[in-house]
Amino acid sequence: MTDELPPFLNRRGALSSLAALGAIGLGSSARAQQPKAASAPADPTPPKAPDQTRKAEPNASHPSPADQPGVVSRPVVKTQSDILYRPAIHFSPTSGFMNDPNGLIFDGTHYHLYYQYDPFAPYAGRVHWGHAISTDMLHWQDQPIAIPETKDGEAYTGCAVMDAKNASGLFSTTQTTGSDAAQGGIAAIYTRASPHRQAQYLAISHDNGRSFTEYAHNPVLDIDSNSFRDPQVTFHKPTNQWVMVVAKSRLHQIAFYASIDLVHWVHLSDFGPSGLFGVDYECPNLIEISQEGGGTRWVLFVSVNPGGPTGGSTTQYFVGDFDGTRFIPDDTVIGLTDFAKDAYALQVFHNMPQNEAVSIAWLSNWQYCQELPTQSWRGIMTLPRTMTLRRDFAGWIRLAQMPRGLEALRGPAIPFAARRLAAGSSAQVALPPGVALDLSMSVTVDERPRDLPLGDKGRTGRFVIVFGNEEGESLTIGFDAFSGQLWLDRNDLHGFAQPFFTGQFSTVLNPDDRHFDIRIVMDASTLEIFANGGLSVGTALIFPASPLDFLRLEASGAAATVEKLSLYPLQKVMDRETAV
Amino acid sequence: MTDELPPFLNRRGALSSLAALGAIGLGSSARAQQPKAASAPADPTPPKAPDQTRKAEPNASHPSPADQPGVVSRPVVKTQSDILYRPAIHFSPTSGFMNDPNGLIFDGTHYHLYYQYDPFAPYAGRVHWGHAISTDMLHWQDQPIAIPETKDGEAYTGCAVMDAKNASGLFSTTQTTGSDAAQGGIAAIYTRASPHRQAQYLAISHDNGRSFTEYAHNPVLDIDSNSFRDPQVTFHKPTNQWVMVVAKSRLHQIAFYASIDLVHWVHLSDFGPSGLFGVDYECPNLIEISQEGGGTRWVLFVSVNPGGPTGGSTTQYFVGDFDGTRFIPDDTVIGLTDFAKDAYALQVFHNMPQNEAVSIAWLSNWQYCQELPTQSWRGIMTLPRTMTLRRDFAGWIRLAQMPRGLEALRGPAIPFAARRLAAGSSAQVALPPGVALDLSMSVTVDERPRDLPLGDKGRTGRFVIVFGNEEGESLTIGFDAFSGQLWLDRNDLHGFAQPFFTGQFSTVLNPDDRHFDIRIVMDASTLEIFANGGLSVGTALIFPASPLDFLRLEASGAAATVEKLSLYPLQKVMDRETAV
Repeated sequence: MTDELPPFLNRRGALSSLAALGAIGLGSSARAQQPKAASAPADPTPPKAPDQTRKAEPNASHPSPADQPGVVSRPVVKTQSDILYRPAIHFSPTSGFMNDPNGLIFDGTHYHLYYQYDPFAPYAGRVHWGHAISTDMLHWQDQPIAIPETKDGEAYTGCAVMDAKNASGLFSTTQTTGSDAAQGGIAAIYTRASPHRQAQYLAISHDNGRSFTEYAHNPVLDIDSNSFRDPQVTFHKPTNQWVMVVAKSRLHQIAFYASIDLVHWVHLSDFGPSGLFGVDYECPNLIEISQEGGGTRWVLFVSVNPGGPTGGSTTQYFVGDFDGTRFIPDDTVIGLTDFAKDAYALQVFHNMPQNEAVSIAWLSNWQYCQELPTQSWRGIMTLPRTMTLRRDFAGWIRLAQMPRGLEALRGPAIPFAARRLAAGSSAQVALPPGVALDLSMSVTVDERPRDLPLGDKGRTGRFVIVFGNEEGESLTIGFDAFSGQLWLDRNDLHGFAQPFFTGQFSTVLNPDDRHFDIRIVMDASTLEIFANGGLSVGTALIFPASPLDFLRLEASGAAATVEKLSLYPLQKVMDRETAV
Repeated sequence: MTDELPPFLNRRGALSSLAALGAIGLGSSARAQQPKAASAPADPTPPKAPDQTRKAEPNASHPSPADQPGVVSRPVVKTQSDILYRPAIHFSPTSGFMNDPNGLIFDGTHYHLYYQYDPFAPYAGRVHWGHAISTDMLHWQDQPIAIPETKDGEAYTGCAVMDAKNASGLFSTTQTTGSDAAQGGIAAIYTRASPHRQAQYLAISHDNGRSFTEYAHNPVLDIDSNSFRDPQVTFHKPTNQWVMVVAKSRLHQIAFYASIDLVHWVHLSDFGPSGLFGVDYECPNLIEISQEGGGTRWVLFVSVNPGGPTGGSTTQYFVGDFDGTRFIPDDTVIGLTDFAKDAYALQVFHNMPQNEAVSIAWLSNWQYCQELPTQSWRGIMTLPRTMTLRRDFAGWIRLAQMPRGLEALRGPAIPFAARRLAAGSSAQVALPPGVALDLSMSVTVDERPRDLPLGDKGRTGRFVIVFGNEEGESLTIGFDAFSGQLWLDRNDLHGFAQPFFTGQFSTVLNPDDRHFDIRIVMDASTLEIFANGGLSVGTALIFPASPLDFLRLEASGAAATVEKLSLYPLQKVMDRETAV
């Protein structure tokens, strides 16, 4: 019995290479780099078994936008907005439209960031997998398109896993040059989407993730649905199998499948419906995360769009256990990863040393992502974030997120001596305009003055952080000491307006606590707030018409003590044209 | 066995009357009507068994605000805002501060609205039960304070039930004059709250809800907690018992108790933790609601504050079954009753004919309720709303809410012929300023013009409803046809600003549907939106600095057909000083 493997373990699917399609979309304008759809790509590694081969070709039946009658081709012109709003330390595409992060993985040397990408136009359309690599998740180097749209459909969201032992059997053909039979590599599992079908595809990379070759017998998982997408695969050691989570989007369920070879999948269980009402459930991600103080829990992330309570896109999470077959939530408490509305499709990195839990999300919202003021490019990723679990004030286990590795980008501290602010006073410092900033603070607001009536305006004791400029724009983050709540207001920035681009958000930190800590990273059109040690995170696009060039702290209603304050410029790491 | 009742069923607790305290807070300024705390209330019905008596007295150890050193007494002066923002068809208190609705019940003739009420000041403080009655839930008549604060604590949120058969045994003492032994009446179950204890109290009314006499052996339920409140009691016919739901607020659990006499309570089960993260879970309400198309489901409403995703207060609901012992949710889907943020502490009416499900919520949010621009009064109730369950586009069973009985208040229709709007065009009609309005519309936006590119601004096809004035203020409700989403924007009204008074909200109606229906009720400082047949409800305080005196419809990006439009003024029903 033991020496007879199941037949599928020895199956060697013939492969066709997509590598030749990888040359587009790198570093210059999208319009100039349409794929040569008419010319057949050269396949450097022709498959041995022609009968099992399916050429992966650009979708000939889906012409480029310029070929479509009545469609206005959009000239790519870099506008002032394209430069002003281009982040210096966040990943954004050279041109075209980017949404979900995909296939986040560490290969032992490089981190890989793949992403949903339409290189042809700055709005969602024909989705490929874009690609960048980095050694620190911050300095990203653009790579060729990794997985293109084909006649089977667009390349929707998915994951990459390290098939180090060649469990798929797909690596040890003659296509790999000089490798030993047990030598594997990176495999991608993702959704091919046509209007009528969404099914899960497998592709492997012979060049360490630079290009992918599709498995010939794709799809590897097809349930005859047009609402079945975004597989994420994890190797589950206790049961020695790969586990896939994938969204039955309109059913609001997350399906679990198992495989020992990444090719053949067995249905394990369904989770849900569970969570908020909404239209589509997307991008499930399952990961075991360390709990501060010891132990781990499994966390299932599920993105929803539209239907987020703050409007449009939102990301939920559930804390529980995974037993190899099903996800058992500890309770039916629903967490939201963000109190603002611009962090969607959170994905976790695979194959991290010491099982470090790190995520990247798309820093946008489907409600307005296609109308943003940039013209030649749209789409930004959040900073990489280290995730832990921590008990909050009430004992609930909650997600904590903090930016990862940002300290290495800090320049010399900007001096700002603000220690004690009397009620009604403020302190201000000039900022280098257009430079990314990293502000950390720890503040305690004084007790409520006794000579003011309860309630009413006398009740307020607020500490306000204002980033502003002389043109009257301001971005405000404030803390109401007597309700323990934090607010964010991007309404007084004048670079963008749209009905769903809501301006104000709030969250509760610790009730009955006049102390708060906060870390704020501001980079061109991005703002990320990590309050309460990362238990409350707010992610927001911001569009000042002019750079914000001062920081002002205000104590309103009650005095406040600034126990800690550090303010650093962050060095530009992305090779893009930015304001500075 | 059968003829021997359990001892508690024959227990006749002595009662002390609270009626003498009921004279305050009716119809004139709060400051002039502080209770005479020093004068002992006359008890018209002295108990037979003095040893079981506990006098319910105003809290002598809790002096009135004016007695507290260092507390500034607030003069009650009616300001222009007090009049301008006073609704004409929504209940609001004559003066002082109102929050949660309590004890909603139909007695066969009148509907009773009790409410959390501090008659002394326009911010939360010393909570009594205010009271009003009505024969239609719209024309409310003010009544004396029904349940005051006592030395045992403030009178927090609770319910009223019809103890028609005197199951409590508390009605058939010599205190009731000439009644037969089986004659019962209205009983109230509510929380008495002191800083260190929250316990459930019982009181009965001998005058049909006008005043209440506390049970002498209160509390009837005490678990030695300072976070245990807001009981709601329902008679559960299948198990022939009263069932209480009550919040273990900081544990985020709803506890279920049973009783056959309203006096003795047995713990049945706990539900949760289930729902969104937040600080305090409050005001649970359990009700069986008809499902359109047949059948019923049980719905458990749970309010959360703070921690609502749109900031501060929010109301969640769970759909499931109740078997007499525990609530079993159909799934772990969480509904929110509102897509805006000003509908909290939803309560249902008891004893309704044909089990009609009707609710009233508090039309405010704890984030700013104590800082609103009115000075002599604060707090408004939502319109009464008929609740049903309906399957939405995806098949989910969801709450639908529509205003109840409003048609009776309609005056002559305001003529407004808007049938077809070309892209970029608008139609406008003058409004009688300051008059409550009832607007119903049904609109279909044309298909997207084919000569516009996908995505980007060309993607928009929006239908916009604007209430405005010549001073440049506007209140906007808009529909984005190609994402099926609705927005509300109160930001361009100039009467109130506060960091948490967020201006913009949105929700999704039916995806892939360019049609929408909407009903909008605007009344002074209140706005209630019922879209999609009541599946999407938005409740918002609005503070125009001047009355909004025109209504404009705009078709943006694509033409639209107005299939139905009716616009009515609504007759003032509340005896309060309003703008008109």
